[in-house]
Amino acid sequence: MKIVLDAMGGDIAPQNPIGGLKLALDALPQIEKFYLTGPTDLLKRELDHQKVGQRHRIEIVEATQVVEMADSGLDAVRKKKNSSITVAVNLVKSGECQAVVSAGHTGAAVTAATLMLGRLEGVDFPGIASPMPNENGVCYLLDAGANPDAKANHLVQYALMGSVYTRHVHGRENPIIGLMSVGEEDYKGNDLTKAAFTLLRKAPINFKGNVEGHDIFETPLDVIVCDGFTGNVVLKSCEATAKIMFKWLKKEIEAKPIRKMGALLAKEAFRTVKKRGSYETYGGSPLLGLRGTVIIGHGSSSPIAIMNALRVASEAVEHQVNPHIEAAIASYALSHV
Amino acid sequence: MKIVLDAMGGDIAPQNPIGGLKLALDALPQIEKFYLTGPTDLLKRELDHQKVGQRHRIEIVEATQVVEMADSGLDAVRKKKNSSITVAVNLVKSGECQAVVSAGHTGAAVTAATLMLGRLEGVDFPGIASPMPNENGVCYLLDAGANPDAKANHLVQYALMGSVYTRHVHGRENPIIGLMSVGEEDYKGNDLTKAAFTLLRKAPINFKGNVEGHDIFETPLDVIVCDGFTGNVVLKSCEATAKIMFKWLKKEIEAKPIRKMGALLAKEAFRTVKKRGSYETYGGSPLLGLRGTVIIGHGSSSPIAIMNALRVASEAVEHQVNPHIEAAIASYALSHV
Repeated sequence: MKIVLDAMGGDIAPQNPIGGLKLALDALPQIEKFYLTGPTDLLKRELDHQKVGQRHRIEIVEATQVVEMADSGLDAVRKKKNSSITVAVNLVKSGECQAVVSAGHTGAAVTAATLMLGRLEGVDFPGIASPMPNENGVCYLLDAGANPDAKANHLVQYALMGSVYTRHVHGRENPIIGLMSVGEEDYKGNDLTKAAFTLLRKAPINFKGNVEGHDIFETPLDVIVCDGFTGNVVLKSCEATAKIMFKWLKKEIEAKPIRKMGALLAKEAFRTVKKRGSYETYGGSPLLGLRGTVIIGHGSSSPIAIMNALRVASEAVEHQVNPHIEAAIASYALSHV
Repeated sequence: MKIVLDAMGGDIAPQNPIGGLKLALDALPQIEKFYLTGPTDLLKRELDHQKVGQRHRIEIVEATQVVEMADSGLDAVRKKKNSSITVAVNLVKSGECQAVVSAGHTGAAVTAATLMLGRLEGVDFPGIASPMPNENGVCYLLDAGANPDAKANHLVQYALMGSVYTRHVHGRENPIIGLMSVGEEDYKGNDLTKAAFTLLRKAPINFKGNVEGHDIFETPLDVIVCDGFTGNVVLKSCEATAKIMFKWLKKEIEAKPIRKMGALLAKEAFRTVKKRGSYETYGGSPLLGLRGTVIIGHGSSSPIAIMNALRVASEAVEHQVNPHIEAAIASYALSHV
């Protein structure tokens, strides 16, 4: 298996992508070759600096440009044809690599992948499946930002793709799908979710119905489908809440020495919860629905997060998620002719 | 000032509404009379049971029906004309009371208030302004659920109403308004927010632009406008995240005696943060845009939350929020003829 890593993607690049690669060289023997895209000299220096070994498993592919956060996704792809993300996607398009991992500009990665790789047969829009920590393991929020103006039939495709992904990658026999809404009662929602609800109930999935915020964490669910605007806003709001709770707790704890001492005794509890809620543990979010495996990492990905994103990429390839998605969508389409 | 309390509204009713009333009798002398709606006998028994005094300031108005969570908002209003919420709203409509407070079925309260009181001149849709704990005080998420299929011009009306509310009730000189979106860059969003962005930039408000999850808590903002679907989902996701963090922390802390001891020493820190994030502190969310003051409480409102909701109601009446909203909307409409 060959996987390409956008070595310039993320807030701390190329340091963290290369740090992640270094970890992956040991942890992920199933990946025979890692491609890195970015300015060759810079990447070579960083590989030397971090004393990365096993150089026969690493190949640098020159990319002179870097997408900046201020670039729009479409502009980035159109105007920076030699950026680290477009060069990386090109390696998947040409078949040289089976998957691409990027922790860079999400809009640029989604746009580059969609335009350059194309969609799987029967898929109208790709969707980002963002893993959330659930008491029963992990629950994917799908779509978390690729398709902010989704239509009801896109949500059905997300449900089908999410079912396939969790069945094949996580071994869920009958993945449970929820629809993000404003109440659990069937009649609640907006025009989009009401239309999607009707379609989802008839789709060949294990549809649980409408779900709400608390279900993300507490209810046995494998996938929650929603439009990309809602998913992105939910994802960022949850992250922000967790962050501010810890910030406020820290401030209150530091206000008195006795509390500080107490917190010190309980610090492992804080660490465990922080880790449980961290994107670092999950690594990356698969962008489902395209002709090629694409994994989107968090902008502030650490080396461990990058390593886990590479692991997620290898799992999607290994379990042949894409052929299974095409089969599921085709079978659904046939039953609706 | 006379305020009516839906004594059957909320998960624990009439106990908590009456508990809240008992606190309010002492804490809110500006309210000369409290009306309670619900079954007279039941409410009398509960008043006696809780030993509520100052009976000359309390008037019970008989309402035989109770809206259940399974009722749809419209059904509740149409079919239960003698429910505690419709009777309560009627007292505002007739002018006997200046404000209504309910912690019951939000959809029923919004529907009853909208249909029975009618909208303020120039307002297309009412919006729920839900207070969120912000490092600079409080930031209102508007709309948090009244209008799940909002149009761009509704979001402008929310911005105008939110400006008026925070200026007059919280004394903000130049309230700062954000637009909930999927990125801070101007071009990001969905079709709705992009259209709203253009209108908001030209509106007579202090518009900060697109904001994201972390801005709710960390950025000096007075109001974040969004459609009611997004607002409701964000509100519930934030609540759910805070709840699960505490639950997981508790579980981890209880796993080892040393951690338990530590947490005991730091318990005041936990309490302070919990309180800071609690809806109880804020009491209720004003439903802005109607001919009458309507305050929506959280379904699981405690007596303190109910008391604070009554306080919020009295403040909205005292500061004449509604006449100011009409003036602001009229002035905006004139400038756009």
